[in-house]
Amino acid sequence: MENNNNNNIIMHSHHCVEMEVHHVVPPPHKSTFQKLKARLKETFFPDDPLRQFKGQPLKTKFVLGAQYFFPILQWGPNYTFQLFKSDLIAGLTIASLAIPQGISYAKLANLPPIVGLYSSFVPPLVYAVLGSSRDLAVGPVSIASLVLGSMLRQEVSPTTDPLLFLQLAFTSTFFAGLFQASLGILRLGFIIDFLSKAILIGFMAGAAIIVSLQQLKSLLGITHFTKQMGLVPWSWQTILMGICFLILLLLARHISIRKPKLFWVSAGAPLVSVIISTILVFAIKGQNHGISVIGKLQEGINPPSWNMLRFHGSHLGLVIKTGIITGILSLTEGIAVGRTFAALRNYKVDGNKEMMAIGCMNVVGSFTSCYVTTGAFSRSAVNNNAGAKSAVSNVVMSVTVMVTLLFLMPLFQYTPNVVLGAIIVTAVIGLIDIPAALLIWRIDKFDFIVMLTAFFGVIFISVQQGLALAVGLSTFKILLQITRPKTVMLGKIPGTDIYRNLHQYKEAVRVPGFLILSIEAPINFANITYLNERTLRWIEDEEDNKKEHSSLQFVILEMSAVSAIDTSGISLFRDLKATLEKKGIELVLVNPLAEVIEKLKRVDEANDFIPTQNLFLTVGEAVASLSIAMKNQSTIPEGAHTIVPHY
Amino acid sequence: MENNNNNNIIMHSHHCVEMEVHHVVPPPHKSTFQKLKARLKETFFPDDPLRQFKGQPLKTKFVLGAQYFFPILQWGPNYTFQLFKSDLIAGLTIASLAIPQGISYAKLANLPPIVGLYSSFVPPLVYAVLGSSRDLAVGPVSIASLVLGSMLRQEVSPTTDPLLFLQLAFTSTFFAGLFQASLGILRLGFIIDFLSKAILIGFMAGAAIIVSLQQLKSLLGITHFTKQMGLVPWSWQTILMGICFLILLLLARHISIRKPKLFWVSAGAPLVSVIISTILVFAIKGQNHGISVIGKLQEGINPPSWNMLRFHGSHLGLVIKTGIITGILSLTEGIAVGRTFAALRNYKVDGNKEMMAIGCMNVVGSFTSCYVTTGAFSRSAVNNNAGAKSAVSNVVMSVTVMVTLLFLMPLFQYTPNVVLGAIIVTAVIGLIDIPAALLIWRIDKFDFIVMLTAFFGVIFISVQQGLALAVGLSTFKILLQITRPKTVMLGKIPGTDIYRNLHQYKEAVRVPGFLILSIEAPINFANITYLNERTLRWIEDEEDNKKEHSSLQFVILEMSAVSAIDTSGISLFRDLKATLEKKGIELVLVNPLAEVIEKLKRVDEANDFIPTQNLFLTVGEAVASLSIAMKNQSTIPEGAHTIVPHY
Repeated sequence: MENNNNNNIIMHSHHCVEMEVHHVVPPPHKSTFQKLKARLKETFFPDDPLRQFKGQPLKTKFVLGAQYFFPILQWGPNYTFQLFKSDLIAGLTIASLAIPQGISYAKLANLPPIVGLYSSFVPPLVYAVLGSSRDLAVGPVSIASLVLGSMLRQEVSPTTDPLLFLQLAFTSTFFAGLFQASLGILRLGFIIDFLSKAILIGFMAGAAIIVSLQQLKSLLGITHFTKQMGLVPWSWQTILMGICFLILLLLARHISIRKPKLFWVSAGAPLVSVIISTILVFAIKGQNHGISVIGKLQEGINPPSWNMLRFHGSHLGLVIKTGIITGILSLTEGIAVGRTFAALRNYKVDGNKEMMAIGCMNVVGSFTSCYVTTGAFSRSAVNNNAGAKSAVSNVVMSVTVMVTLLFLMPLFQYTPNVVLGAIIVTAVIGLIDIPAALLIWRIDKFDFIVMLTAFFGVIFISVQQGLALAVGLSTFKILLQITRPKTVMLGKIPGTDIYRNLHQYKEAVRVPGFLILSIEAPINFANITYLNERTLRWIEDEEDNKKEHSSLQFVILEMSAVSAIDTSGISLFRDLKATLEKKGIELVLVNPLAEVIEKLKRVDEANDFIPTQNLFLTVGEAVASLSIAMKNQSTIPEGAHTIVPHY
Repeated sequence: MENNNNNNIIMHSHHCVEMEVHHVVPPPHKSTFQKLKARLKETFFPDDPLRQFKGQPLKTKFVLGAQYFFPILQWGPNYTFQLFKSDLIAGLTIASLAIPQGISYAKLANLPPIVGLYSSFVPPLVYAVLGSSRDLAVGPVSIASLVLGSMLRQEVSPTTDPLLFLQLAFTSTFFAGLFQASLGILRLGFIIDFLSKAILIGFMAGAAIIVSLQQLKSLLGITHFTKQMGLVPWSWQTILMGICFLILLLLARHISIRKPKLFWVSAGAPLVSVIISTILVFAIKGQNHGISVIGKLQEGINPPSWNMLRFHGSHLGLVIKTGIITGILSLTEGIAVGRTFAALRNYKVDGNKEMMAIGCMNVVGSFTSCYVTTGAFSRSAVNNNAGAKSAVSNVVMSVTVMVTLLFLMPLFQYTPNVVLGAIIVTAVIGLIDIPAALLIWRIDKFDFIVMLTAFFGVIFISVQQGLALAVGLSTFKILLQITRPKTVMLGKIPGTDIYRNLHQYKEAVRVPGFLILSIEAPINFANITYLNERTLRWIEDEEDNKKEHSSLQFVILEMSAVSAIDTSGISLFRDLKATLEKKGIELVLVNPLAEVIEKLKRVDEANDFIPTQNLFLTVGEAVASLSIAMKNQSTIPEGAHTIVPHY
């Protein structure tokens, strides 16, 4: 066995010399146009939406096309009564939540309460036809309401000029919808990716705090808490009622969080609160005790509002800005909610298609007295919990809201405003996600700073500037990673041909005579100066530590992580090679990827400036092959691996 | 031998099962503060300037520190007469070039010709003390002159209000110097890296064309070519003289390009042209023939100008902007020239230190009637060719200019302006680098577009907007690379354990049951949506092509190129894992780098969400190990590799 084993080593060594060196090859030639086409496809059509159309007859293509734009044609024909029963229950459940929330959020946006109900009627119907999510419950949401209200208030007062304010709100909604639909049509959906999770967590918490402080004031009847709020007359009855219902609602929320099966407790609590408080105020004649109520609301469904859109005048800039910001924010929420539930229930939601659906919904909404709507996270969760199977639950909700608008409006006359405040506070408190913030702190400190920037920016500066700061900071981080890429020294893991980070793998050892560096970023104009200096510093450090008997002969650059290179990057190699040549060191590249090898070859087609014998497929092969070359130069061969193959 | 060989295979297979699997380990723990420190060091001190101070006695530290700020202390003591002889010749050569160029460039900047000579006197002296390049020849340059002149002319006319124009020029120079020195002190030198090679080539060619057209007009005596130029009276003598000297100068340039040893032909040509033309005009009494001349120049060295700096008034914004843009441009030129010759002659130039030197030089210059100066490429090349050994050649040049200022100014009285135009045109034509542009086209089409953007932007829009467009475009490209990272399918190269891009390596084959993807970019908020969709599409494609008998069991993600990850990136893995689990596919990660493994471990320390048995060091090990697991599950073992080890 001993002998056998020995033989085996020799065999292995033979193997090393003869077989282990594989060539780096450039990818097959593609024309600039083909590359451009592939690049554009990956940029704008990463989901390859036309894939299903391939090789189908014309009629099928037409049907598929119609189904693409109107998903209802896809699931509609297979819809059953069984599914409808589930959707009916879910729809009624979310309607019971949507009606009080609709009224409350409209107040948050400084709009008449009834606009909140209008916005819960038309948009869900539009979404049911165009949308591809089965769980999204559509309607007004707290964040977009807050942002819309506070941005428009910068120029127009909702109390002194309510009509103009309403006009601007509808116009902003129109621009929001237009912007959302354009993102979808132009396939620029990746823009919303720049509002990262960290930013959203910080932003939502900040917004929740602003909203809570505003509402707390009206809840407690404090005046002059901020200048922008109207006066609320002081009354202990209001305070008592506010506190009681807030506790009730928070309790209901707490129960539902603890036992997800009891989701209907928090889902029903707002409507129950509205009903109880309305009866109470009616019974004790609350107006006489200083409790402010909603008052008379106009009956009837949405009046048209296309004549209220203002595309001229001094507020146009503000309106467009408001439209874009509320559009992005509501889109982000809607898409995130849709994706979350799609992943949970294992179906797919097409981001760009959803953008078009949400955009159309808002454009139509702006014509029918609705303000910005999207898929709300809380209501969609209730929808899902209540067993919704399709967008029909939105239709059920919409019909319920319609019935309310037509026949039940007088019932809200005595609903106290303070209960609406309690409903808003309960909703926005759910936006503060401390565990997620802690997780971010644990995983990535920089993301945590971005989160704090969004949080404090929104609270102390403004929504748009806070968000812009946070997005700028996170983009800057990405650029900084490119500008200062990591270079890592690799060592051999004993007993293998594997070379890994010396710092991470303590057992890895350095190979004398070689400096093996891994460059971990694309090489381009923004980092060549740094990479040049850093590489030279590695080499100088190496030359200073001449404790090993052999001096530096080869610098091996492991290029597996260099996914792209530009003309400046190519010049880096030329400069490095020239500098190393003066020191008598050879430059060796390992595993340059397709794009890199292609560009290196193109520099000087006549005489390769990185010759083929200095290109290897793995570090192991490079070291083995170059070691043999090194030892063949020296006089005394040493070690088993240099035994001449015996054939 | 047959038997032996067989045995060998079994041994190898045994080896596979027992030894080939190596564990992925997280890097040793470092505190957040340590990481921050390391990060800041790499960002701002990549060259580790304090390295040489380590472990030195206090006195040496002091000497080293003084030498750091005043490089003259480093080379001064070792300076010899032998070196001085070389520097004297080089200094006189560049002076002969600097005097006519100084006068010409000052005219290009719409400044009095004498300011160009002032700027060739003080700044070279400052640079000789502070600068670390041995080859840089300091003085006014064409690009900065053009930009300064054209930017200031936007608000102030140099003909109707020459004093104000001069004041603004000195103030801009002050801000340019301040900005340059600040970049050096704050170690933000990497900002100039964003002016990539491609941008500079396009920009310089564009600037050269603008300048040439302007000068051609004055050369040919055409008026109203652009509105901004003054009138030049038509005279055939001027045209003839202009054409003759332009041909002479271009010829001299051509000779020097063809035979680098004859560099002195083009170096001396401008001075010769000035002398001949001056004598000619004096002899034929040129003024009577409509040839415009420089006229009387004031004798004496630089008057102080600190009282001319204007830090108030309506032009402050323009002056600061001009200072920043000319500052960046001249810095880029100076640093690039310094680095080029340092690499050529094998010494090092510290970018941040050079920025401080050039910045100080301009601040001092703004106090002494100089406008923006830097190291000029053409003159530095002449300096180097003429045998300059140190910054003393700058001192020689400066002294020569001083002598000229003191005693020789009357000689320039009859120098015709048309010769200065010819000198400028010859200089800027050298800025158009067609071969470099062609190389960029060959290597990288996108860089070529960036170059064209800079080129046409400068010609048709303006210097600052053209540059901003080009920088924006190239930054956008980097962000796009991050937003749409490449994912590549890997296959096994037969006879090895190496897995490489199937598209690049045609001999590579896919392993049934495995989908092996390499992700080639850091994973962050900007690309998780794309990566999620793209990966799922790979998997769906794989499921569609179920030609192989075995269905997909493992998705292996090769992570060697994922140099960084953020919290969003972590959530990508969570989502992917959940989606794959529903399909009965396992997610396996290969070679996650230090940062990635660390963050993955931190997500949920109690239960690993990527368990250790799904982490491998190489794709080969992962496939080998998982294949065995797969086959152990199936009932019939097949193939030689599944032979149970025989120990």
